[in-house]
Parts: sequence; C-alpha cells; structure tokens
Amino acid sequence: MKTTLFEVSTRGQGLYEITHQVADWVAGDGVLTLFVRHTSCSLLIQENADPEVQTDLKAFFARLVPPTTDPSMSYLTHTYEGPDDMPAHIKAALLPVSLQIPVIDGRMALGTWQGIYLFEHRDAPKRREIVAMLG
Amino acid sequence: MKTTLFEVSTRGQGLYEITHQVADWVAGDGVLTLFVRHTSCSLLIQENADPEVQTDLKAFFARLVPPTTDPSMSYLTHTYEGPDDMPAHIKAALLPVSLQIPVIDGRMALGTWQGIYLFEHRDAPKRREIVAMLG
Amino acid sequence: MKTTLFEVSTRGQGLYEITHQVADWVAGDGVLTLFVRHTSCSLLIQENADPEVQTDLKAFFARLVPPTTDPSMSYLTHTYEGPDDMPAHIKAALLPVSLQIPVIDGRMALGTWQGIYLFEHRDAPKRREIVAMLG
Repeated sequence: MKTTLFEVSTRGQGLYEITHQVADWVAGDGVLTLFVRHTSCSLLIQENADPEVQTDLKAFFARLVPPTTDPSMSYLTHTYEGPDDMPAHIKAALLPVSLQIPVIDGRMALGTWQGIYLFEHRDAPKRREIVAMLG
Repeated sequence: MKTTLFEVSTRGQGLYEITHQVADWVAGDGVLTLFVRHTSCSLLIQENADPEVQTDLKAFFARLVPPTTDPSMSYLTHTYEGPDDMPAHIKAALLPVSLQIPVIDGRMALGTWQGIYLFEHRDAPKRREIVAMLG
Repeated sequence: MKTTLFEVSTRGQGLYEITHQVADWVAGDGVLTLFVRHTSCSLLIQENADPEVQTDLKAFFARLVPPTTDPSMSYLTHTYEGPDDMPAHIKAALLPVSLQIPVIDGRMALGTWQGIYLFEHRDAPKRREIVAMLG
C-alpha cells in the first residue's frame, strides 16, 4: 500500500486539473483511491479536451445550487459563512468526495477524454488536500 | 481483508451519523469501503460541525426531488409504494451508494470537518445494512 | 489483483443491466471496482425489480438536464457535438464513474433489490468499456 498527499491551491470556483501529477505518482498495478479531505470541494473525472465543458459544468452547478443571496435559496439556514458556503456543501454532496481508478502496468486506465479534476466550490482562495492510496 | 456489517435504524428522512462506530472498527492501513445494501438511502461524507448543514441538505434534496404527490412530479410512474418511494430511488442515484476512505495507522484520513452519515430517504422506519471492508 | 474489461453496446439513453456478467466473473473475497472509461455515460446501482424505476430515473435526469435545444439550457456553450452531448457530460458528473462492491465468498454483497447498470446518456449507439478490478 503506497500513499501520498497532493495539495491544490484554488483561486475561486471551478475545475483544477491534477491528472498529470497523479499520473507521475502511480506505479505497478492496483486501484488508486483519491480522497479529498473537505466538505466544500469535490473530485471529478471529466472531459479534458474542450475547456468549454468545464465552463458549462461550472455554470450548470451554479444554476442548480445558486448562492444563498438568490431568493430561490432563502429557505437555507446555514448562511453565516458566506453566500457560497452552504451551496458548496450541497455541491459537495452531489459530486464525488473520492475517486477510484484502476492502475495497470503503472498507468491509470483512464479513457482518452478523461481528466482528473478538483472542483472548487468556494470563492475564497483555499489550499486543498487530497489523500492518495494505491494498492 | 477485514469485513463487518454495520446496522442503522432510521426513523424518517435525514442524516444519521456513523463516524464513531466506523472509527472504532478500523485498524492498520488500507482503504475502507462502506457499501449500503439498499436503493432508497445513501451514504454521505459531510460537515459534522453545524447541524444546520444537515437540515439544509435534507431541505435541498426535498426540493430537488419532491414527493410524487407534488404536481411537478406527476410524470413519475412508480408510485404504488408511496409518495416518498420513487424520490428515494432518485436521491439514491444522486448520492453515493458507497464510500472509500483511506485508513492510515488505524485512523481514517478524514478532514477536520468530515463526518460519515447514512442519508435516509424513506419516511417509514427502516433497518439499514452497511457492509464494511478494509484491506 | 484480478482484472478484466466488460463491453456494453448501447442503443440510446437509458439503463443497461450488467449484474449477471459481473456476477459470473467475481470470485473469492475483496472489493470489486468497476470503472467506466467515458465522460458521457455512468455506472449506477439501482432497483432491479420494477422496470418503471428505470423509466422514471431516465425521465428525472432528462428533466433535470434537458437537451441544449431546450431554451432553459441556452447558457451552455459546448453544443457542436449535438444537443445531447453537454447534458451527457453533466449527467456523467452527477452520477458515478465508478462503483465499489464488496465481494465475499465469490458473491457480491448486493442487497436483494440492487442491480448494476450502465446508464447511457447519448442518443447514438456506442460501445462502452468498463474496467473491472478485484483484489
């Protein structure tokens, strides 16, 4: 069992690709687990080709779960950490907290168009920790 | 490979924390898998500090997927098991059926604010089974 | 660590059951990981009894994320691969790219009503690849 910690510095909501740093670390055969130690960001495997996909994903989730300043979200009560906080928790429920990826001969079995992303749901800059375990 | 079964008795929709019983069981190093053997409840890692977060999560999902008695859900056909049944299946698709958490030196690598919950989507009391495997 | 590749041919949006071919392959004890190598379809564990559940799941997600020809989706920009393409990516973010299922004595620890499905989000026929790893 091989383990490490990846750190990602975020500067507002959106997708931050980590495919390459993960690819450089994996070796041998087994299942890679990536686990993010936070409740207001997510991990996501998504298309890595057209950056518009990332823009659209961010836009979809911003509409599905708008800030608590939006009248449609007035029923939410956990608002004292900012209008992006409770929506961040909701998005973190809708999107993965962990990913599992088969590794074969030292390479992740990702499809051609699959990249690995940290999806940040908070506006303020954050340092995010991802625990990786392979075995 | 070490395995056990956790049981949770639920009394209506909402989040039931299981962090402590899981923490008491894990040991050594490896990836913990928790798997819930049902299609109308979920597992979830979420903030364990402010109970309002749980209230708001429950409220968000109740609005995203209202009971089939709500006119907006009249297109649903699987309604004979009660107005909370098909919404429960939909929530069980949107939320995790399993969790994977790295365990290092006998402790789960959870972040400071992360707790482990069973998220019940049915109104009637239920006995829920969660298979745990660590290795 | 035992690994294989399952292939599923799809003919439009909907759920395609793969429980039996997976059950025939698993053996021994461990955690089974199923990983789909695409960003426009998903894996899902759902009720295997009443086919109306599958119809309703498909209907719910079609309403939550309609085609880009729907006026409510006019804010999306990644549209040149067809009206079902960006919605497929969004559904692939909302639904699992991988599943983890405990295997005990050669049998998956699924509940009575749990089946394993590939959830296709594209209209055109596709050949989908699922990497399986057990260990």
